Amino acid sequence: MGGITPILFQRDGTLTREGKEVSRDEISPKGSWLSLDVLITKRVFDYVDHILNLPSLEWVQSTAAGFDNPLFVEMAKKGMRLTNSDAQAVAISEFVLGSVLAEFQNPTARLQKQAEKKWEGIGFREIAGTTWMIVGIGNIGNEVAKRARAFDAHIIGVKRTGESPEAHETIRPADMKARLPECDIVVFTSPLNKETHHMGDAAFFAAMKKDATFVNIGRGGLVNETELISALDNGTPAVAILDVFETEPLPETSPLWDHRRVRVTPHSSPKTDGTQLRALDLFLENLAAFVKGAPLRNEVPSATIIGSAA
Amino acid sequence: MGGITPILFQRDGTLTREGKEVSRDEISPKGSWLSLDVLITKRVFDYVDHILNLPSLEWVQSTAAGFDNPLFVEMAKKGMRLTNSDAQAVAISEFVLGSVLAEFQNPTARLQKQAEKKWEGIGFREIAGTTWMIVGIGNIGNEVAKRARAFDAHIIGVKRTGESPEAHETIRPADMKARLPECDIVVFTSPLNKETHHMGDAAFFAAMKKDATFVNIGRGGLVNETELISALDNGTPAVAILDVFETEPLPETSPLWDHRRVRVTPHSSPKTDGTQLRALDLFLENLAAFVKGAPLRNEVPSATIIGSAA
Repeated sequence: MGGITPILFQRDGTLTREGKEVSRDEISPKGSWLSLDVLITKRVFDYVDHILNLPSLEWVQSTAAGFDNPLFVEMAKKGMRLTNSDAQAVAISEFVLGSVLAEFQNPTARLQKQAEKKWEGIGFREIAGTTWMIVGIGNIGNEVAKRARAFDAHIIGVKRTGESPEAHETIRPADMKARLPECDIVVFTSPLNKETHHMGDAAFFAAMKKDATFVNIGRGGLVNETELISALDNGTPAVAILDVFETEPLPETSPLWDHRRVRVTPHSSPKTDGTQLRALDLFLENLAAFVKGAPLRNEVPSATIIGSAA
Repeated sequence: MGGITPILFQRDGTLTREGKEVSRDEISPKGSWLSLDVLITKRVFDYVDHILNLPSLEWVQSTAAGFDNPLFVEMAKKGMRLTNSDAQAVAISEFVLGSVLAEFQNPTARLQKQAEKKWEGIGFREIAGTTWMIVGIGNIGNEVAKRARAFDAHIIGVKRTGESPEAHETIRPADMKARLPECDIVVFTSPLNKETHHMGDAAFFAAMKKDATFVNIGRGGLVNETELISALDNGTPAVAILDVFETEPLPETSPLWDHRRVRVTPHSSPKTDGTQLRALDLFLENLAAFVKGAPLRNEVPSATIIGSAA
């Protein structure tokens, strides 16, 4: 695309244009790409500091799906247009299936038997015949549903409005608890907002099936971690696969690290080359649209961002 | 089903009828069920000894898919009807997806990071965009294909005749080597016979893609293990997931146990409750058909069994 001069945010936090360092006062960019390699490091705060202090900025492309961070509210309040990303949906869905299959099949125990040269088969549980509840089913949830369906699972999607194309049935949040006793796997994929904050609480976990598997790849704030730990101690759910936490990085003092029924990963469910390539494609597509003044894909209305945090 | 008196084969090798021990001379059964709990123990040889020495026997229901064991040839030569099983296809396909995802995502390393309380994400490889070759695609292969497709993989089925419903394309064995360079995952699901014996040889592995994953859940004899080990030492394939071996149990002296690029499981890919329940359903269905003189499901013609071993 001719006529575009990229300004790069370097690993050391400096800005460069055509190979030479530039200060914030010397530049007036119109668009900004919050790419995955920025988003998953602590440098993201320096980057966002630039965004919030560049009055020329009109549009920010994020690599994340969520907009619950208060910094996005600040951007929206400054009148910036924000586009989010569905580039991570494939990776996260593979993470969910990989994690549930690892729980059911225990590859670590298989490797241990091999190391001991023991010819002893480990029986495993099938996904076939299980029922999944996918709470807040959207891009990510539908990718999870598509894969779990192929394993002959029954999928219940939970969504405030509309139908989910990949679920066998779509229900409303108010009907969630009544259906929990039939669900073998419950996956939280919701955005974090007033309605969803701490929706995973004592009452929610108490309504779950005894041997159920709980997965959270949405946001840490969807779950009351203290109540989850009590529920796990009481045996329901049987296992919690957690990629997101109320405080990130998860503090060393958190009892989640050591809990035998908890699997901790560091918000790494989207961490694939595929996510980066799809995010680049999306950015370039939106950049071309932005230059032409055409509609942007995945634009999130400012009112939604500001409203969700209110 | 009225009028049927079951004779049970006990764990200690004895036979009982209505709770009392009976000798082989006292009984004249017409049908026999080689169930999974018999098939996976060494008692299977005692059981087959009964089968081969009960002249009254007309029909044997196996829980296995394969008929390459010479004992089946003996049964066929005695004029017994043999029905095989597709009850394990679901379990084996989940095992294949679980094993490939474990290879790509490394859940063991994740658990290790958790144990060390390290907030360090491990990047992983996606199945999306990979190409799979499923060699000898039948019941089991199609279940694998159905699941891998849902991950946006491209599936090439290899089959002597006909088309595979779940593959994107079906090719003939003669065209296999020409397509290997594009395949990220190669799965052997073939029966063992003269044509397929040692089809995984030095030339086959040399034609594979450098970082490819090889999976064998068919029969150990499909692979020349010595040539596989040389191929792995040369870096292609990158990994071999092996559930079946030329000699089972795998001898302690086999270099496969210790090879860092090999994952060994003890012919346990069908080991689920689901396999047992579906096998029971199949046996009961065929028992009812047998009593009525109706056609049996999954009957394998004697000529096929005798011919494959010739």
